[in-house]
Amino acid sequence: MIGIRSIASYIPEGRIDNVAQAQSFGRDEEFVVNKLGTKTLSVKDEAQETSDLCVKAVDNLLAKNPQLKKEDIQALVVITQNGDAEALPHTSAIAQHKLGLPTTTACFDISLGCSGYVYGLYIVQGFMQATGMKNAVMVTADPYSKIMDRNDRMTTLLFGDAATATWMTSDEPVWKLSAQSFGGDGAGAEYLKVEDGHFFMNGRQVFNFASVKIIPNMQEVLDKVGLSFADVQAICLHQGSGAIVDAIAKRLGEEHAEKVIKDMFGAGNTVSSSIPMLLEHYADNPQWKNVLISGFGVGLSWGSALLQRVNSQ
Amino acid sequence: MIGIRSIASYIPEGRIDNVAQAQSFGRDEEFVVNKLGTKTLSVKDEAQETSDLCVKAVDNLLAKNPQLKKEDIQALVVITQNGDAEALPHTSAIAQHKLGLPTTTACFDISLGCSGYVYGLYIVQGFMQATGMKNAVMVTADPYSKIMDRNDRMTTLLFGDAATATWMTSDEPVWKLSAQSFGGDGAGAEYLKVEDGHFFMNGRQVFNFASVKIIPNMQEVLDKVGLSFADVQAICLHQGSGAIVDAIAKRLGEEHAEKVIKDMFGAGNTVSSSIPMLLEHYADNPQWKNVLISGFGVGLSWGSALLQRVNSQ
Repeated sequence: MIGIRSIASYIPEGRIDNVAQAQSFGRDEEFVVNKLGTKTLSVKDEAQETSDLCVKAVDNLLAKNPQLKKEDIQALVVITQNGDAEALPHTSAIAQHKLGLPTTTACFDISLGCSGYVYGLYIVQGFMQATGMKNAVMVTADPYSKIMDRNDRMTTLLFGDAATATWMTSDEPVWKLSAQSFGGDGAGAEYLKVEDGHFFMNGRQVFNFASVKIIPNMQEVLDKVGLSFADVQAICLHQGSGAIVDAIAKRLGEEHAEKVIKDMFGAGNTVSSSIPMLLEHYADNPQWKNVLISGFGVGLSWGSALLQRVNSQ
Repeated sequence: MIGIRSIASYIPEGRIDNVAQAQSFGRDEEFVVNKLGTKTLSVKDEAQETSDLCVKAVDNLLAKNPQLKKEDIQALVVITQNGDAEALPHTSAIAQHKLGLPTTTACFDISLGCSGYVYGLYIVQGFMQATGMKNAVMVTADPYSKIMDRNDRMTTLLFGDAATATWMTSDEPVWKLSAQSFGGDGAGAEYLKVEDGHFFMNGRQVFNFASVKIIPNMQEVLDKVGLSFADVQAICLHQGSGAIVDAIAKRLGEEHAEKVIKDMFGAGNTVSSSIPMLLEHYADNPQWKNVLISGFGVGLSWGSALLQRVNSQ
């Protein structure tokens, strides 16, 4: 069985003071804390490329897991919509070379946004099974600072840069990938898009979509394995904003709301990196046996999945 | 077992006279026929988006397979590095909506170039297995006309636009995906890239890489299942150019050279669409039991695989 063994992340050192930034748009600190959910935003150096963020995250993963050798990494998969190059090549190829991985490493990028981690887990697990691989590293790295219009308060107050690396293996994985449910609706493609180099988001539409769609999507996952929210110890939602995480938690009802983890790590909405960052920092809790994850955003696209502990960390 | 059931393609109607184009660069018809391999190049309408090419290919697949209903398509995967949007959203989301597929369809894009079809088969097969899906459609659509510098003779004489759609299913597939071998080498990322909106290719380096790398890569695939080139009835290489297909065929030796299929369909090098177009048009030959496919290009990236017939067409 192939599952998740370990996760590491990299948050660039650069910080934007989000309280000051919000004030320039006439918003106070209470709005920053309660609605946005983050008083600082991480931002990469101009000179750092997406592949450099990938390298940092993978280096952190390797440092944390000395038993994982570069020559054992059979696939390197990067989830991004803001890679190094304009159109080609794919960022995983560049990262493979910068990391000094063997040329027998299968490399490809997946183009997905905030749902990317959930999709990616099953894509990579499946690819490994289909090809008989034992070890792969899946990276999320989608630096929105590359496409940010700093005059657009709908976006500049929310997004931060980060990258994560997840070791997937058939060798004593900690988390099994259980049931999942995916969906997409291109009718909402216009709600999150890049035009003339700048990112645009219809925040109201995205908020409404997520607040309505995600709980039924998670319920569907639970139904597939005959479980209910009562069987789940933690819920790791994409950290789109403080407000959307709170809204979904509230809809879940008092009994389950406290299982919803909320932490933007002083980085902001880090797109496909938000869920693995939650798992990295919270999931070593031995009480966590069944964990729901759910990502949602650009596409529109959404995916929820159940992770089940099969080994101690 | 999940495999390939059916393939359809779409070649846009627009044609560039490649003999005339070559003459403007001081090249004669003999060069066009023997080295480039195509006297015409297909080109999409300016107004056609990548997702429109996807829709045409999928519509052709549906027309050819009336038993495949839109509501049965559980995943739509698009292989492209030249999608509709600058960075996001992904093209599969837009195509899902234009096609009227259900919002329960899992949609994602894979960023790979000329190796994309071979990789994509195992990615999609794996994703389907990991998620319990029965039917998916994988689309290739990478219109290089969007990034072409018509003054660059290294590229403008070679590439054409096309799209293909492959029905992958657990329901009586015709072709089983057998052994495979993948690799990548970002040291060659510079040899095929887009900068300032224009595609650049170091044709010499790409030619040398492919002519050296591909036969050992195919041999590795055969070794995995204890077969040799003598057991293979056909070899479908990415149609990078007439010259590279001929060079690999020649290196295979007289006995096997004739198994190498060469056909650019008057379209040119259609990136990830070249291999599925060969399969669509030639693989209904009942003599074909074991077929090698091999893609190579941007990344650098390469992948070879063995397809084995398990049902008649």
